[in-house]
This record gives sequence, C-alpha cells and structure tokens, in this order.
Amino acid sequence: MANPTAAMLVIGDEILSGRTRDSNMHHLAGRLTEAGINLNEVRMVADDRTAIVEGVRALAPKHDHLFTSGGIGPTHDDITADCVAEAMSASIDVRPDARAILQAHYDRQGIEMNEARLRMARIPEGATLIRNPISAAPGFTIGNVHVMAGIPAIFEAMVAGILLSISGGDPVLSESIRIDRAEGDIAARLGELAEEFADLNFGSYPFRQNGQYGAHVVIRGTDAHQINHAAALLRVAFGDDAS
Amino acid sequence: MANPTAAMLVIGDEILSGRTRDSNMHHLAGRLTEAGINLNEVRMVADDRTAIVEGVRALAPKHDHLFTSGGIGPTHDDITADCVAEAMSASIDVRPDARAILQAHYDRQGIEMNEARLRMARIPEGATLIRNPISAAPGFTIGNVHVMAGIPAIFEAMVAGILLSISGGDPVLSESIRIDRAEGDIAARLGELAEEFADLNFGSYPFRQNGQYGAHVVIRGTDAHQINHAAALLRVAFGDDAS
Repeated sequence: MANPTAAMLVIGDEILSGRTRDSNMHHLAGRLTEAGINLNEVRMVADDRTAIVEGVRALAPKHDHLFTSGGIGPTHDDITADCVAEAMSASIDVRPDARAILQAHYDRQGIEMNEARLRMARIPEGATLIRNPISAAPGFTIGNVHVMAGIPAIFEAMVAGILLSISGGDPVLSESIRIDRAEGDIAARLGELAEEFADLNFGSYPFRQNGQYGAHVVIRGTDAHQINHAAALLRVAFGDDAS
Repeated sequence: MANPTAAMLVIGDEILSGRTRDSNMHHLAGRLTEAGINLNEVRMVADDRTAIVEGVRALAPKHDHLFTSGGIGPTHDDITADCVAEAMSASIDVRPDARAILQAHYDRQGIEMNEARLRMARIPEGATLIRNPISAAPGFTIGNVHVMAGIPAIFEAMVAGILLSISGGDPVLSESIRIDRAEGDIAARLGELAEEFADLNFGSYPFRQNGQYGAHVVIRGTDAHQINHAAALLRVAFGDDAS
C-alpha cells in the first residue's frame, strides 16, 4: 500500500525577504520521513490573503495532509487562521474552548487579555485544537489541514503532538553509500540500477573533499531486502571505493 | 514603480525527505532583497517530471523572474534541464558551446568525457548559458527562467553572475526596532500604524529572552522618510522600551 502523502505551506514575509531562515520545513520533512509519510511538495508564501487561500486550496485536495506554519499570533499580519477558514469554506470566530485556554494561561502569568490576544482564539468551526505546551495559543486541524505556529520550538511541539494521532505508512528505509569517484563516472551504472529496482529511489549527492570528487548514493524504499540487494550490486560495481 | 517580482523552484528529493537542509532559498532571498527584487513565492518539489514541469508553468508567467536550483548534474535523477525545456516548449539537445566548456574543463583535469557528463551539455534551444566558475557545467537562462545547480557554492556563484545582468527596482530598506513587550501588548498600535502607512510592510517577530517576551518589529519599504516617520511613532508609543 502506498504511503500517505503530505504537503507543507510555510507562511511569512520574513522568510521570503531573507530576514529569517526557515527551519520548520526541514524539521517536518525529517519527522514525516520517520513516520512513513511522503512530503511531496512545499510552498512558501507571504502574509498575503490571496496567496494563503490559494495555497491551501491547491494543496489540501492533492495530499492526505497539509501542514502550515506561521501567521497565528496576535498581530495584524497574523491572518493564517482566517485564510484557512476561507479556503475550507468554514466560518471563524473566537471560540470558547480556545479562549478558556488562553485566559487560564494569562491568568497564571498575570497578563491582561486584550483584543489582540483574543485574535489567537479565533478558530474555524469544526476544527480540533492542537495543543501548544509553550505559549498556550493553540493551533488547529480542520479537515486534513494542520495549522501551526511559526516559532520553531512551538511548531516542533505541535508536530510531535499531531504525529501521535496520524497513521503513517511503512517506514521509509534508506542506505547511504559513499563512493569516492566523480558522479560522472558512476552515473551510467546508477541509472541502470534505478531502472532495475523501480520501487526504490536512488539519489546521488556529489561532494568534493581534499580536491577529490565523490558522491553519497542514498537508496530509499520500504523493502529492506531490495535495498540490501541494490546496495550490494552498487558496491560490486565500484569495488573497494564503496564503503 | 513597483519592484520586479520573482519566484523560486527548489528541486530535489533530498530536500523533501529531510536528508538535506536547503540553504539556497535563504541565500537567494537575501540577494534579491538587496537587489530590490521581491521574492513572492517559493515551491519545493521532488525530482519528478510532472512536478517540475507544472512548477515552471505555474510560476514563470506570474513573475518577472523564476529561479530554479538543483537537478542539473550527470545522474539519472538530474532531469531539470529537460523539464524546463518541456515547460517552455523548447527543444533540447547537447549544445556545442556547452560541450566545449565541459570538454576544456575535463581536458585540463585529465578526466574522460562520457555519456553521463555529456548530459550536462544538454541546453534548451535559445537559452543563454550561466557560467559555473567552480565545476564548469553551466546553468542557463531561457525566457525569464534561470536554471542553476543545487550545490550551494555553485548556486551562489551563479546567482552572483545573474544579478549583474538583471535590473532591480528601488532597494528595499528596512528598520528593525526591538520592543521589550509581549506582542499582544503592541499589536493594537502596530495594526493602526500598518493601516496608516499602507506603502510600508510591518512585520512582528516575537522572541523570549530570560523569561521575558519581546518582539522585533521590522518596517520595510522603499521610502526612507516614511520608514523613519513610522519608526519614530512606534518608539513614541512604546517609550523607553523601544530601542
């Protein structure tokens, strides 16, 4: 059975301007691979209503899951929740359960609730909340769309929570083989193996060390026996170079 | 006059599997901002023909420039050049000028040219070559699409070359103001300023330091006078906290 598929929508002007280097995409990619879910596509857009709505509408129907990061804080540029509601044709308002979570958090800290903070309790109708163990303001899941914070520590905590409740597929296994020859020398045999083992994925990642070219070949798939077989053939082809 | 716009297509299984953390997007974002070109959208896709062709067809017509990274090496999974040609309805074959560049490079290094390496001389008809000062294999520009290598050192060298020949707009200026108050406390006034100064972009990036919440507010735009004015109003609103 094919593994579930996923897409990600990274939201935030600061990523596109180069001010901030996104780390959430790389984190999610690793966690999904471990969970046997194939991340097939990522889009990064600005804090712009049209871009977010179109992104959700394009990605959610094509994949089993869509994960978003960013734009759910209290400031004017935090428009993700409203845009996701629009894209999913759901109404949105301050929801009592989310408001109660925030109120309890602020009461504990002696911080006043105000209109801006209340924006973080805006949750689309029908969504389930995603717990935020760090700063309380929840994310949410509506349909197959998981809406999370952009701050990496909070994003990562939310991902950990969601992945407990999502069924993955067979874990994706991989074997990495270092070959101390230039990619141009191994490409022909590698291409043959990729055709022969059509269920496996062969990636070639060149490097240069001490002036010598080499490549890491990564064989990925869900069948350990096939991976071992292909790796053995690759080692035979490149003799003592492969380790 | 509005600044030129750009999109980026990051190509590579290794990015989506989490094996490799992409750095090219962040690099390009910074260089484009310096050049006065607005990066509006990024997509990351696998080494998959349909995904690459659709990505180019979706992004190239919407923006002044499309930059791609990855998938122009010698191995079977390097299919970017052929996919871009297909998306742009151009024919593609080994081109004598690109072949001569590669042959000279390999001759100098005593490396044999072979079928795999010759793949890197496949260039769409009508494209201009982008110089690769590191490993010779060129990128290319066809229409408004700039096709570059995925290896960061080569990508960065190619970007530097391209930006010499692209006209940017007014440089985007920015001022960053640190406010030692929680975002929820500054959101209301910040929202007012964002409405008042509609030509400027106000981003709020929360942080937590020694248990205290704060935010960096970044005001971006092309009019230095407006930015200074807005920054002064923000400092007045938050008194000695803002620096």
